[in-house]
Amino acid sequence: MLIEKYTEGISLKRSVDAGTAEQRKAVQEIIANVRKDGDQALYNYTETFDQVKLEKLAVSEAEIERAVSSISNEAYSIITEAAENIRSFHEKQLRNSWMTTKESGTMLGQKITPLDAVGVYVPGGTAAYPSSVLMNVLPAKAAGVKRIVMVSPPGKDGRLSEAVLAAAKIAGISEIYSVGGAQAIAALAYGTDTIAKVDKIVGPGNIFVALAKREVFGDVAIDMIAGPSEIAILADESALAPDVAADLLSQAEHDVRASSVLVTTSSVLAEEVALEVEKQLEKLPRREIAEAAIRDYGRIILCTDIEEGIHAVNEIAPEHLEIITKDSFEVMAKIRHAGAIFLGRYSSEPVGDYFAGPNHVLPTNGTARFSSPLNVDDFQKKSSIIMYSETDFRENAEKIAGFARLEGLEAHARAIEIRGVK
Amino acid sequence: MLIEKYTEGISLKRSVDAGTAEQRKAVQEIIANVRKDGDQALYNYTETFDQVKLEKLAVSEAEIERAVSSISNEAYSIITEAAENIRSFHEKQLRNSWMTTKESGTMLGQKITPLDAVGVYVPGGTAAYPSSVLMNVLPAKAAGVKRIVMVSPPGKDGRLSEAVLAAAKIAGISEIYSVGGAQAIAALAYGTDTIAKVDKIVGPGNIFVALAKREVFGDVAIDMIAGPSEIAILADESALAPDVAADLLSQAEHDVRASSVLVTTSSVLAEEVALEVEKQLEKLPRREIAEAAIRDYGRIILCTDIEEGIHAVNEIAPEHLEIITKDSFEVMAKIRHAGAIFLGRYSSEPVGDYFAGPNHVLPTNGTARFSSPLNVDDFQKKSSIIMYSETDFRENAEKIAGFARLEGLEAHARAIEIRGVK
Repeated sequence: MLIEKYTEGISLKRSVDAGTAEQRKAVQEIIANVRKDGDQALYNYTETFDQVKLEKLAVSEAEIERAVSSISNEAYSIITEAAENIRSFHEKQLRNSWMTTKESGTMLGQKITPLDAVGVYVPGGTAAYPSSVLMNVLPAKAAGVKRIVMVSPPGKDGRLSEAVLAAAKIAGISEIYSVGGAQAIAALAYGTDTIAKVDKIVGPGNIFVALAKREVFGDVAIDMIAGPSEIAILADESALAPDVAADLLSQAEHDVRASSVLVTTSSVLAEEVALEVEKQLEKLPRREIAEAAIRDYGRIILCTDIEEGIHAVNEIAPEHLEIITKDSFEVMAKIRHAGAIFLGRYSSEPVGDYFAGPNHVLPTNGTARFSSPLNVDDFQKKSSIIMYSETDFRENAEKIAGFARLEGLEAHARAIEIRGVK
Repeated sequence: MLIEKYTEGISLKRSVDAGTAEQRKAVQEIIANVRKDGDQALYNYTETFDQVKLEKLAVSEAEIERAVSSISNEAYSIITEAAENIRSFHEKQLRNSWMTTKESGTMLGQKITPLDAVGVYVPGGTAAYPSSVLMNVLPAKAAGVKRIVMVSPPGKDGRLSEAVLAAAKIAGISEIYSVGGAQAIAALAYGTDTIAKVDKIVGPGNIFVALAKREVFGDVAIDMIAGPSEIAILADESALAPDVAADLLSQAEHDVRASSVLVTTSSVLAEEVALEVEKQLEKLPRREIAEAAIRDYGRIILCTDIEEGIHAVNEIAPEHLEIITKDSFEVMAKIRHAGAIFLGRYSSEPVGDYFAGPNHVLPTNGTARFSSPLNVDDFQKKSSIIMYSETDFRENAEKIAGFARLEGLEAHARAIEIRGVK
C-alpha cells in the first residue's frame, strides 16, 4: 500500500453498482409479471434463474427443524448467544409513545406503533450469512413487528442454506419462502396468493434485488441500498501494526471493491502496516479478492496531528471506523460521520459483525452523512396526537383562521369558525 | 355524497402522480446539465421555466428585511406564535446519545448527531405557504442542523413570496436562493459554485421536483414524496354535522384529487353530513376544486359499530384522522395507521396545519402504514458505539472467530486471533 500525505477534501474511490438500463428494464418486467401472474411468475422465474422447479414456495416447519439439527451444537450455541446480544442491544432502543399535557387541557404527543409486516431478503449461494438473518430480523422483533417474512433463493437442490434456516429459527421466525431475486421483492411489495404483502423490505442482495427495491420504494418502505464494505482505521503510534493490518484485510476479503483505509498520525505505523498487509495477505484463503481490494481501494493517509485525522475521517464518512489512539473516547466525540465506531484495541471490527450486539447493517458510500445503522426506529412509525382543548381553541381560533386566510384557504378558516370563536 | 355500508377491504381511490417517461427523461437531463454547467444551468433553466432573467441566485439580507416589513404586524405575530409552538413540540423529540456500561468494561451505545446541511424546497406561485417553511425548517433547527438552505422559484418579477421570506426569517434561516424545479434539487444534491451541496432535501413540490428528488435519492437523503391531501373522520352520534362537513371540505379545497372520507356509526350523522357538505360547498371560494374532490374522492362509510370503524380507518391509513366519538382516547389507542390523529370536537384539522405544534408534513396515500410525520429524527443520524473490553474480548474471542469461519470469512477470524485468544 502506498503512503500518502493528507490533503484537504479526500475523495475516496468508491464503487456503487447503479445497474445498467437493461438490468433496470429486466427488473421492471419481472415486477410487472409478478403483479400480473402472482405465484406462477415466481415459479417460472425460479426455474429460469435458480434452475430449480419448485413444487411449493413455503419452507415447512419440518425443513426448518431438519436444518437446525444438521448444524453443529457449537454453531447453534454461538448463533444463539450472538442473537441474545443483538436482541438485548436493540431492545434498549425501544421508545415509548409520549404526551405533553397542559393545564388548559391540551395534549400533544407522538404515538409509536410497530409496522404490521416486514420482509427480510437473505441472499443465497456463497453469500448465505446467518449473521445477516439475525441482524435484519432481530431489530424488527424488538420493535414489536408481528409478521416477519424471510425470502431467500433456493439452491439447485431446491433448498435454502441450513445455517440460514437455523438462524431464522433462533431469531424466532417461521414464515419463510424459497424465492429470491427481483421476483421475491415484487412478491413482498405487492403480494401473491401465497405471499401476503409487507410494509417494509430489508436485507442485502445482488444488483437485481437492489434495483427491485428501488422500483418498489414508495409503495413499501425499503432499507438503504448497500454498497461494498468499508473500513477506516484512525490510529496513532499506540496501535499495533498486525492488528491494524488484519482489520483492514477483514473488510478487503468481502469484495474486490471493498474499501480499507488507514488514517494515521504515525509514519512508523504507516510503514509497518503496509508491510504487514503484504505479509498477512500471502496466507489468506480469499487472497485474490482481498489483494484486488487493497490494490484498487486501499489507502494509507498520513496526518500531521489527530485533529487532521478526525477531519479526514469526517470527510470519508466510513461504514466502519476503528479508533485505536490515546484518549479514544475524546476522539470519538468529534466524529460526525461514521456508521459504527469501534474504540480501542479489543474492538476489532468482526466483534461488531457477529457478536457484540449493535447492528452490522450500516450506511456505506459516504451515506453515514445522513443515514444510520439498521435500528428499531426503522421498524416503527409515529403518529402525531393532537387533543386541543376548548379553552385553547377559543383562545387561538382567530389566529388559526387568520393564518389559513393568509394562505388563501378559506375552507380551513371556516372549519375553525364553525365551532365558534371567542 | 353517497352513503355506503362498510365492507371488508376498503380500497380508497387515491391518485398519485408518478410522472410520465418524458417527464422523467426531462428531469434526468436537467440534473445532468446542472452537474455539468453548475450555476449557468440554473440561470438558463430559470429563464426558460420561470421566465425571468436573474442576475444572482442568493436572496440578500435586505430583500428578506423588506419582505418582513411588508407583511402586516398581525400576520407577523401569528406566524411567530405558530413558530414558537412548532419549535416547542419538536424540541421535545430531541434524543440523547446513550451508552450502556458493563462492569467488565464493555460499553455499547448510539451516538446521535445532527445532519450537517439540509435543503428545504418551498414551492412558488399560488402555493407559496409560509406554514410549509416553518414545518420543514423548524424540525431541522430543533435537531441542531447548522446549515439550512431554502430554495424557491422566483415569480416573473424575480422575487420570492414576501410571506415565505418572512417565515424564513422567523424560522431563523438566511441562506436562500431564487431557484426552483428539478434544477434546484440538482443544485442541492450535487452543489454548484453558489449553492454548496446538502445532505438531505425536504419539502413539497410539483411533479418535476418529486421526480428529481427520486432521482437524487441515495446520493442525498430525501423526505417522502407527498401525494394529495387526505382526511378521514371517525365519528359517532356525538359529532356535529356542520363541524364534520367543514373539516371534510378543508381538505377538499386543497386539490381536486384530495380525499375526504367520513367513517361513522351513525346513519343520522351520515345523512346530515351529506347535506351539510352540499350546503357549505355553495359558498366556498375554492368551490370548484372542493366540489370535484368530494365528487371523485369523497366517501361516507357507515359502520355497524366503533370497532368496525377502527378497522376501516386502519385499512385506509389516512394522512389526517379526526376522532370525534365518545371515549376518543380509547379509540385512538386502537388506531395503528394514521399520520396525525386529532381528538375531539376542538381538534379541527386546521388547528394542526398551522398552530398546535405537531408537523403538517405527513404520510399520504396509505404510507402511514410505514412512514411518520416529519420529525426531529429525520434530521439526525445515529452511529453505533462499540468499546469492547479486553475481558469480554478474551471471553468471547473463540466464539467470534468461530462465527466468522462459519461464514467462510477467514480474515475476520484472524483479525480476532491476532489479538490473542484465551
